[in-house]
Amino acid sequence: MQITTLTNHISLKRPLEGGNEQQLAVVREVLANVKAQGDTAIRTYSEKWDGVALTDFRVSQGEIDQAVANFDQVLLQDLTEAAANIRFYHEQQHRIGYRLPLADGSYLAQRIIPLEAVGLYVPGGSAAYPSSVLMNVIPAQVAGVKRIVITSPASKNGQLPDAVLVAAHILGVTEIYKIGGAQAIAALAYGTETIAPVDKITGPGNIYVALAKREVFGEVAIDMIAGPSEIAILADETAYADEVAADLLSQAEHDALACAILITTCESLAEEVAEEVERQLSTLPRESIARQAIERFGQIYIAETMEMAIAAVNSLAPEHLEIMTVNAEEDTQKITHAGAIFIGRYSSEPVGDYFAGTNHVLPTNSTARFASGLNVDDFIKRTSIVYYSEQTWKQNAPKIARLARLEGLEGHARAVEARGWEKGEV
Amino acid sequence: MQITTLTNHISLKRPLEGGNEQQLAVVREVLANVKAQGDTAIRTYSEKWDGVALTDFRVSQGEIDQAVANFDQVLLQDLTEAAANIRFYHEQQHRIGYRLPLADGSYLAQRIIPLEAVGLYVPGGSAAYPSSVLMNVIPAQVAGVKRIVITSPASKNGQLPDAVLVAAHILGVTEIYKIGGAQAIAALAYGTETIAPVDKITGPGNIYVALAKREVFGEVAIDMIAGPSEIAILADETAYADEVAADLLSQAEHDALACAILITTCESLAEEVAEEVERQLSTLPRESIARQAIERFGQIYIAETMEMAIAAVNSLAPEHLEIMTVNAEEDTQKITHAGAIFIGRYSSEPVGDYFAGTNHVLPTNSTARFASGLNVDDFIKRTSIVYYSEQTWKQNAPKIARLARLEGLEGHARAVEARGWEKGEV
Repeated sequence: MQITTLTNHISLKRPLEGGNEQQLAVVREVLANVKAQGDTAIRTYSEKWDGVALTDFRVSQGEIDQAVANFDQVLLQDLTEAAANIRFYHEQQHRIGYRLPLADGSYLAQRIIPLEAVGLYVPGGSAAYPSSVLMNVIPAQVAGVKRIVITSPASKNGQLPDAVLVAAHILGVTEIYKIGGAQAIAALAYGTETIAPVDKITGPGNIYVALAKREVFGEVAIDMIAGPSEIAILADETAYADEVAADLLSQAEHDALACAILITTCESLAEEVAEEVERQLSTLPRESIARQAIERFGQIYIAETMEMAIAAVNSLAPEHLEIMTVNAEEDTQKITHAGAIFIGRYSSEPVGDYFAGTNHVLPTNSTARFASGLNVDDFIKRTSIVYYSEQTWKQNAPKIARLARLEGLEGHARAVEARGWEKGEV
Repeated sequence: MQITTLTNHISLKRPLEGGNEQQLAVVREVLANVKAQGDTAIRTYSEKWDGVALTDFRVSQGEIDQAVANFDQVLLQDLTEAAANIRFYHEQQHRIGYRLPLADGSYLAQRIIPLEAVGLYVPGGSAAYPSSVLMNVIPAQVAGVKRIVITSPASKNGQLPDAVLVAAHILGVTEIYKIGGAQAIAALAYGTETIAPVDKITGPGNIYVALAKREVFGEVAIDMIAGPSEIAILADETAYADEVAADLLSQAEHDALACAILITTCESLAEEVAEEVERQLSTLPRESIARQAIERFGQIYIAETMEMAIAAVNSLAPEHLEIMTVNAEEDTQKITHAGAIFIGRYSSEPVGDYFAGTNHVLPTNSTARFASGLNVDDFIKRTSIVYYSEQTWKQNAPKIARLARLEGLEGHARAVEARGWEKGEV
């Protein structure tokens, strides 16, 4: 890893995988065809791209039961405990509306209403991602969403990975479809003969899924278009180089475009971490991916003071931030921009990816300046309520009419004045 | 207005003003030039499009003082009272983070952090929109945003309307620029020599402003791309036809693409409202706009039962909903999709546009299915925090490592295991 003295100009900006015109054309065709032909189009695309001929997309209860029966009991317990931790953390985000009484029986209120139906895309391919199921479904459940749909591409054998079905089973989700790619997003957004549409689509996917989500945005809500994973580590002389290096690599192994940055006040730590990264890389199963990420977007910065280091972290607004300093708690208070913060040497970032309870769907590409990780509020909406009594109306109508006329909206003024007055009731 | 018997297929979907390729090309050029040339580009575009040659874009304290001195005292009081009502309603949305202690000194937490800087676009042209200033600035202030910037196109005389400056003055906002159009959005997103960039841009504007907001989305946050205004009124035989008609027209006068829908169980009301709309239209200053809206997107539906009527309202998910029925309170409870609800004959919709306290920036085009009006949460972000003690780590590390390996991410497992163990501390 390159070691540089910190300047004021460090950035997390990396090329965002935007897709090309050809990919976009494919996605638009898929969306249009699924919209027009429903299940038939889904079947065609599943056969074409996933290589599976399915008569029924929906996972049966038998398949779920079989997956649970097949599954390692220790892992089942691990997933169950992780789910409980995630639920515990997110339950604190549950919110209720309010009602503000005004004079004369009038009131203002805000109602919190859970979304009716949401769809979660779980990526497939070589690996299974049960943690995606937990991180997306649980906030929706805590919000009170009644219908939660999971969709994920089937393997060549026409099945979904056991781990995904087990995670869904733990959460009680039973509406699961073996559909992947842009056609899955189309099915969720528009509905088909057998799949009712949803109001919001969340979850990560490949470039076709990301483009499809962008295209249906507006028709339904989406979570975010997440970029490659990022970690920044703020460390001083009290940190252990092998731990820092391991954590940098844990994000680098995600994606060749992932970003791993150490910002430290300690020159010897910088040098040791650079060596450790090289040493640990050589035995990593995903060495090739991690090495590309480290070479392209791995950086070690040496800061003169902790203050400068903290300012640099805030300018990065990283997705994940680890703080391994002597005053970690105090330093944490000074962070204004980070998706998630992990404090101290025992809070390695993967603790949050899988288990601690916080969400692992987090803002990337410096968007932590203004965006948040997935949370319960992503699955609710707010409706405002106004009730004005006759007395309150009478008292305020002239003011409201004046304000409307100030903006040149006579129709607004007349609407407010249209009450009792002209019928001689006031 | 056309009167139809209610079927299950009524829709609020109208053409969303998406702009054309030529407009998009203009916007992209403006964004690129402002990014590259800063203030110089702003000056060029202001002269070209607003017809004003400005050396200094920033409104001076003298100009603000002058506007306040010029302003009608009664209107000043009205705006001040409206601001207080809006603040009162939004203060209930202020939220704080939480901290969840775990065993052995470990904890999870969520921090709520206000955005650092936000920019509000206020449209210009023939009219002044002080209510936009109140509705966008106050939630940001309640959230705790420190830097709030207003930008609005100058009139030919190089000034902003007094009403806009007075509204800003009431709220204590002093960073105000006389810049309009796509160049204003560019200045807010990228910054110039004299204008520091912001993290989020809110507020309505013309098609160039809307396209520019879409283009900078990702670089900064934006509120929403709002469509034309909508009102749905749910009414039975207890409603007054002249009041219903006036309220329908109050939204129709906004925009030739606005939508005004009455859903009623009472046939005679339907007929009376149709007549009343025609009668009131003929004396409305904005008759031409309102008439186009009513002819294209005005509808009266007769429902056999109140249940059917309520189901239709929910399928519309209107921006504004008025409920004028004998059991209005009870019926309100059955509404699941609406941006804002106004209950009873004295809660005419303009009450909420200007004065009651609820926000008037609301989801259109049926997006109330999943979206909310502007609120304090739009100006905060959430950061999750994990602190694991050595004990908690020791207890859970094996589980976390197993879950990482289940997903094929060995680097994640090793990071968690890299702690104490390999240094022989555990």
